[in-house]
Amino acid sequence: MLNSRWFLEFTNESEAALHSIEEVLYTSQTQYQRLEIFRLGKYGKALVLDGKMQSAQSDEFIYHESLVHPALITHGEPRKVLIAGGGEGATIREVLRYPTIESVTMVDLDEEVVEACKRLLPEWHEDTFDDPRVEVVYEDARAFIENSTVPYDIIILDLPEPMEEGPAIMLYTEEFYKNVYKHLSAEGIMVTQATTIAPHNLNSYRIIFNTISQVFPVVRGYYTFVPSFYTPWGFVLASKASDPKSLTYDELRERISRLNASLGFYNEETHHGMFALPDYLKKALDEEKRVNRDSSPISFY
Amino acid sequence: MLNSRWFLEFTNESEAALHSIEEVLYTSQTQYQRLEIFRLGKYGKALVLDGKMQSAQSDEFIYHESLVHPALITHGEPRKVLIAGGGEGATIREVLRYPTIESVTMVDLDEEVVEACKRLLPEWHEDTFDDPRVEVVYEDARAFIENSTVPYDIIILDLPEPMEEGPAIMLYTEEFYKNVYKHLSAEGIMVTQATTIAPHNLNSYRIIFNTISQVFPVVRGYYTFVPSFYTPWGFVLASKASDPKSLTYDELRERISRLNASLGFYNEETHHGMFALPDYLKKALDEEKRVNRDSSPISFY
Amino acid sequence: MLNSRWFLEFTNESEAALHSIEEVLYTSQTQYQRLEIFRLGKYGKALVLDGKMQSAQSDEFIYHESLVHPALITHGEPRKVLIAGGGEGATIREVLRYPTIESVTMVDLDEEVVEACKRLLPEWHEDTFDDPRVEVVYEDARAFIENSTVPYDIIILDLPEPMEEGPAIMLYTEEFYKNVYKHLSAEGIMVTQATTIAPHNLNSYRIIFNTISQVFPVVRGYYTFVPSFYTPWGFVLASKASDPKSLTYDELRERISRLNASLGFYNEETHHGMFALPDYLKKALDEEKRVNRDSSPISFY
Amino acid sequence: MLNSRWFLEFTNESEAALHSIEEVLYTSQTQYQRLEIFRLGKYGKALVLDGKMQSAQSDEFIYHESLVHPALITHGEPRKVLIAGGGEGATIREVLRYPTIESVTMVDLDEEVVEACKRLLPEWHEDTFDDPRVEVVYEDARAFIENSTVPYDIIILDLPEPMEEGPAIMLYTEEFYKNVYKHLSAEGIMVTQATTIAPHNLNSYRIIFNTISQVFPVVRGYYTFVPSFYTPWGFVLASKASDPKSLTYDELRERISRLNASLGFYNEETHHGMFALPDYLKKALDEEKRVNRDSSPISFY
Repeated sequence: MLNSRWFLEFTNESEAALHSIEEVLYTSQTQYQRLEIFRLGKYGKALVLDGKMQSAQSDEFIYHESLVHPALITHGEPRKVLIAGGGEGATIREVLRYPTIESVTMVDLDEEVVEACKRLLPEWHEDTFDDPRVEVVYEDARAFIENSTVPYDIIILDLPEPMEEGPAIMLYTEEFYKNVYKHLSAEGIMVTQATTIAPHNLNSYRIIFNTISQVFPVVRGYYTFVPSFYTPWGFVLASKASDPKSLTYDELRERISRLNASLGFYNEETHHGMFALPDYLKKALDEEKRVNRDSSPISFY
Repeated sequence: MLNSRWFLEFTNESEAALHSIEEVLYTSQTQYQRLEIFRLGKYGKALVLDGKMQSAQSDEFIYHESLVHPALITHGEPRKVLIAGGGEGATIREVLRYPTIESVTMVDLDEEVVEACKRLLPEWHEDTFDDPRVEVVYEDARAFIENSTVPYDIIILDLPEPMEEGPAIMLYTEEFYKNVYKHLSAEGIMVTQATTIAPHNLNSYRIIFNTISQVFPVVRGYYTFVPSFYTPWGFVLASKASDPKSLTYDELRERISRLNASLGFYNEETHHGMFALPDYLKKALDEEKRVNRDSSPISFY
Repeated sequence: MLNSRWFLEFTNESEAALHSIEEVLYTSQTQYQRLEIFRLGKYGKALVLDGKMQSAQSDEFIYHESLVHPALITHGEPRKVLIAGGGEGATIREVLRYPTIESVTMVDLDEEVVEACKRLLPEWHEDTFDDPRVEVVYEDARAFIENSTVPYDIIILDLPEPMEEGPAIMLYTEEFYKNVYKHLSAEGIMVTQATTIAPHNLNSYRIIFNTISQVFPVVRGYYTFVPSFYTPWGFVLASKASDPKSLTYDELRERISRLNASLGFYNEETHHGMFALPDYLKKALDEEKRVNRDSSPISFY
Repeated sequence: MLNSRWFLEFTNESEAALHSIEEVLYTSQTQYQRLEIFRLGKYGKALVLDGKMQSAQSDEFIYHESLVHPALITHGEPRKVLIAGGGEGATIREVLRYPTIESVTMVDLDEEVVEACKRLLPEWHEDTFDDPRVEVVYEDARAFIENSTVPYDIIILDLPEPMEEGPAIMLYTEEFYKNVYKHLSAEGIMVTQATTIAPHNLNSYRIIFNTISQVFPVVRGYYTFVPSFYTPWGFVLASKASDPKSLTYDELRERISRLNASLGFYNEETHHGMFALPDYLKKALDEEKRVNRDSSPISFY
């Protein structure tokens, strides 16, 4: 017998996904967004913001390892890390796998989301919110970075998609990335999730990539797959100095071996696999000229 | 205003996808299956068999390049190729990119599907059905291979998923793979599509991989992403001798340069990227003990 | 195996219906609206305008008999009938069942809809478009009535729902009804479809009823069920003189016996059944004070 | 922004309804069925059994008044009433509106359903479970009636639809109705819900009606609309003596005036309106020859 309860997500006006809901664990209209936590038929628990899947229990490790490790492994000695967004706490979890970490500052707008994740998604954060090196700040990430005096080794942008009228729209502009640049240390690296790289829906990724390319000397696109996102998922890594593609398999293996945990997705092979861009994507990035600016933020969707 | 017409595909009892339909180009109940060709809102044309998306215009190149090139590039000098399934003709198209090809035999059960694809999906086959080296046989692929006397360099299994009561269920068993082995030349390579590798739905891929491992000395899992499949997609390459992972970037580049067309997805980097298995998948394959046999075909779903 | 093709209709932001599509018979963006004709899994053919089911083969007789006969039977001797909307031709069909009819004028904005119905929905119109008493005018019904010099015995408003920005929004106002009144003969009757009477969604019906009540001396609400509308469907009959509720069973039987066809839904019992209003509806109509005017058309949805 | 949570109900293989879920109030797999209580976007609370809407807050009064009052009003002096099914308690509520009632026995298989309704659906039962005249028995209704020694004035069958393998399949057979007949007093009346009367889906109603006609001398079909059922809903009233259609408006008014509450749907007009059968339905009932028997229960769907 078919389930009665379904999570319906329109990813655009022509595509939607349906997931059976085993249990509704939490729903709320927070100060900033609609927050829902479900237990789905196949994916386990899932965090949903404004009707969009953010991460799901069965494959969040793919997303979070892919978001965090390319940047931190490339840096080699990350000590001070800033996370913008990342409410589930899984980004913190992955960052704390590095013994060199001295501080992790997470800036998330929405305290209610973070509190709900703390309570209901322990499989994500694994109690790393309690680590003494971790500080959580409830503030707009853009304002926080502008006012920050710390130079960070790594800034991780773990943000909702740049929807018009969404809370993250001003965190994908050239002006913002310039600010990020300013607050990185000399060997600093920024990484951002950057929406889908599906051939039929490449617009957002191209713009984000090209916008970041205006600001950083080393910019690398990469991608992974997250089944609960239904589509291959893109990231952009931007660095002041080191290049993730120049690391050898041996170097990668050695750096990964220092982590204090074994991983489920990321290894020396998947590192390079993620940076192996298909030709259609290389071509699209080469041809892109648009830059996303505060004054006229591009409509991504 | 939302579209009225939607293609609803339940991929399992807990997940479904909705795509808006721009145009219904063809529908038929053939002798073997329900056949539909749509023009979708985002993906362009799409071939649907028994309600399941087979390939879509915007990303079929990712599927077909990923299916064909790892095997043929690894072989190096493919001359005689057998394709089981592959009705759209895009697998033929990719095979014919190799100047060494002498013959391509495609065995598909369902003439009506092939005829509809010939007529309605020229973007897939690019008229390669008319190439004098191509022969299409309408027959059960298993019987055809058993009775074949040709040793093939490459056998490509471009089949529907192993659904209970589906037409392809007996093309995923150890007995079948033994037959494939027997009809390959000494340097022969088999490749098969092998369903999703999503962590929550790994059962079919594990069994297929382990079943093939009973028969071939070199067996390599790999995967790609095909957005219209909503999930990362697995393949298994099985070889009598050469190993796709042992090719250097230079070797790959040189071999790819001999092809008579430029590709959209496959290159020396994505070649290795596809064989870069995440740890969760390596572990699952290592632990798998089940073998799919004619006498008791495993229920994949 | 579940069908692949579905007609998805959101009737409001909280409810939708899905119907399997057997065949897409016609789709077009006309000058005025999106036009689709489907063959559905259960209802046979269906006319869909702007994504909204207009009528379906298996139960259009219920809608059209309920729309036409209460007014025409109540009148007794209808000779000149005006239909606003009614593109399928089934309203004409029902009107022509009265031997007294001298002329039927149908005013529909959208010639492409009428032409498509003529060609594809013969079960609806039964070739009555060809009757010499029938004239079809492609024009805005409001303008047509304003400029008309004929006094009509019956004016039938067979219109799309009053959607904001929809083509029919100005055909539900007090000013419009006053115009209708002016162009009716002394015994004239107007009838309009008037949206759902479901208790949870009564807003539109109440307003339409009360607006008409400002203009006509005899105003009667009635309703029927049309399964393809998913909800009980309301009408308003407005008369200058005679009252449909005052007819006896014998009178009704006698008048119905004069029709030149047997009906599927309407008879002397269902006539009174349709005017038998539940108490919740009577109460709602009694309490309603809103009037829909040109200057500030009420938002119905 | 569209809601994320939807109740998806396939009413047959070609039709489904989607309702937005505001809140999941209860879910359980009971000993007998899947039980869910939702708060829906438009209908308020709703009871769902095995994925099928049973009743909804905004229109349950239409269903329950239509189920109860035609029989009890026709009887005139109901004292002993048996209800089979009716877990929500709203059928009890309507029965207790008659001052003549001495006892109401409700037999429901599933204690967990009744307990959940008691706790979560007070708007339905209005605490009538606590009335000293009410007894609830958790047992199979068929066995209970067979073993009963009380002659009842009224037996109300407020059952789930006759689904193959459903709990109610044996409560729609000739043998069962004979048993009901035996346990009714000389003026006794049985009434049963009897599925949809939509023209395209009339099979079940016809069979139920004809089966009951084998057993009772007076059998009357009637119907109402319940928006949350998406379709007009049929009932069958079967009586040993009195005929609901023979009551005059004055008699009805007088009998209704004795009730200890005002109603929302049922009145002297809607009474006759419900028994006013359309010609398509009369014809279908006249032609029906099938009888549902224990030995070979007819497949209703």
